Amino acid sequence: MRIAVVAPSCTLKREAAEAVARIVAERGDCEMAVHPQCFLGDGHFAGPDAARLAALREVMADPDVDAVWFARGGYGSNRIAEAALADVPEAALGKTYMGYSDAGFLLAGLHKAGAEVAWGPMPQDVVRSGGEAAVTRALDWLVRRDSAALEGGLDGPAMAFNLTVLSNLLGTALEPDFSGVELLIEDVGEQLYRIDRTMFHVAGSASIRKVRQIRLGRVADIIPNDPEFGFDEEAIVADWCRRSGICYAGRADIGHDAANTVVPFGRLD
Amino acid sequence: MRIAVVAPSCTLKREAAEAVARIVAERGDCEMAVHPQCFLGDGHFAGPDAARLAALREVMADPDVDAVWFARGGYGSNRIAEAALADVPEAALGKTYMGYSDAGFLLAGLHKAGAEVAWGPMPQDVVRSGGEAAVTRALDWLVRRDSAALEGGLDGPAMAFNLTVLSNLLGTALEPDFSGVELLIEDVGEQLYRIDRTMFHVAGSASIRKVRQIRLGRVADIIPNDPEFGFDEEAIVADWCRRSGICYAGRADIGHDAANTVVPFGRLD
Repeated sequence: MRIAVVAPSCTLKREAAEAVARIVAERGDCEMAVHPQCFLGDGHFAGPDAARLAALREVMADPDVDAVWFARGGYGSNRIAEAALADVPEAALGKTYMGYSDAGFLLAGLHKAGAEVAWGPMPQDVVRSGGEAAVTRALDWLVRRDSAALEGGLDGPAMAFNLTVLSNLLGTALEPDFSGVELLIEDVGEQLYRIDRTMFHVAGSASIRKVRQIRLGRVADIIPNDPEFGFDEEAIVADWCRRSGICYAGRADIGHDAANTVVPFGRLD
Repeated sequence: MRIAVVAPSCTLKREAAEAVARIVAERGDCEMAVHPQCFLGDGHFAGPDAARLAALREVMADPDVDAVWFARGGYGSNRIAEAALADVPEAALGKTYMGYSDAGFLLAGLHKAGAEVAWGPMPQDVVRSGGEAAVTRALDWLVRRDSAALEGGLDGPAMAFNLTVLSNLLGTALEPDFSGVELLIEDVGEQLYRIDRTMFHVAGSASIRKVRQIRLGRVADIIPNDPEFGFDEEAIVADWCRRSGICYAGRADIGHDAANTVVPFGRLD
């Protein structure tokens, strides 16, 4: 299995790439090629839009690449997603794509285009405390489809998104079909009033109201409200699900942390 | 003209209510009734959802009220907007509604329901530097339809929204028809990467692509990005308009400040 790493959002840390390369070498069951674009820097981004798009299109079209692993999140994959998905080369649809957070824009569009995609840890996660386990979990699924890497309790078609990313792709060309899907959401670095407002938006969308159920992963690094918001993240999500006629099915084991699990989009094999 | 003030989001300051009452008394051309609900406090909100909804429904249904003036923004009008607009009493559609920022959720829904609504300064603005002029501008339009209070250059149907509020009402039951409208946007207290992501979402919406043109008001209190984002707010908005086939028509004089102008929704009289 040959895995290509590109960075459609922000720059990958060299030490993260080196640490993941050591893990891959020790496993001996896959090869990993970190595209040099991952280390470009252009303000907020891992290189200008054109460089990030070119690297992504290059690995998508490469018939020797079995999986495309997004280096990290941050912000910016939405800026190139539509162009990346224009005239998709046939080789692009035969491979697997993995990432989470900002990469959700691409996961959504690639899934809609017919490729196999999965929410899961990314190379940059190796620098987290316990990050080696996260990267190993991602590779176990990419290379061996190890079911131990998966989110527990998946029993039908599923998708996972950062809630803020999901809110920002609704109604755009990237929006996939949510009908009958178990939707897992998580967030990081937001105030609770923003979580509440974003849930109003997401649960108020007719396309989201077609999901089978929603489960909530971790909502980390909440920025304090002044005054206190008055409801916690689970009360907020459960309340908007109730108001919107969506089944709220409890917590999920996804989030911006080393315990983050793998959620393949669509029907389980 | 009888103006009722209610607070569908956050609590109005007593000193703001008193200062506006003095302005109204000096004018002598209108009466203002500040609903006691405006001073309630419940965590983030000016009272629980039920209290904010009851006050709003009460003034909407009151045939003696000519205009409903939203006390201030903050967050929370979306939580009661759908319920406020269920079975709208006939008296509600014969009056004018004014506010901005978070009140945009209600302006959108009320405009969609057929009421006359306008973006414009709110009572709490009186505490800003120069705030007396802002409140006077709002009253000049509410009471006398004084065209000097209006945004310059309006030459057809228009709407104005806080960009983040607009993004969060797209696809919900509150979304109005943007066909042929000049859309004015502004924002406050966001990082530029969020403005960029929100513009991706808004300009990527098929319903927004029906607008006649977009103009950009002020984007205030930008939270610094690290690293620098690399584009300013006007470059961001113009770029997403260009990508989306929307005419970008330059700047507008709206924003979270005392210079904020009045933008009546829909066709100008």
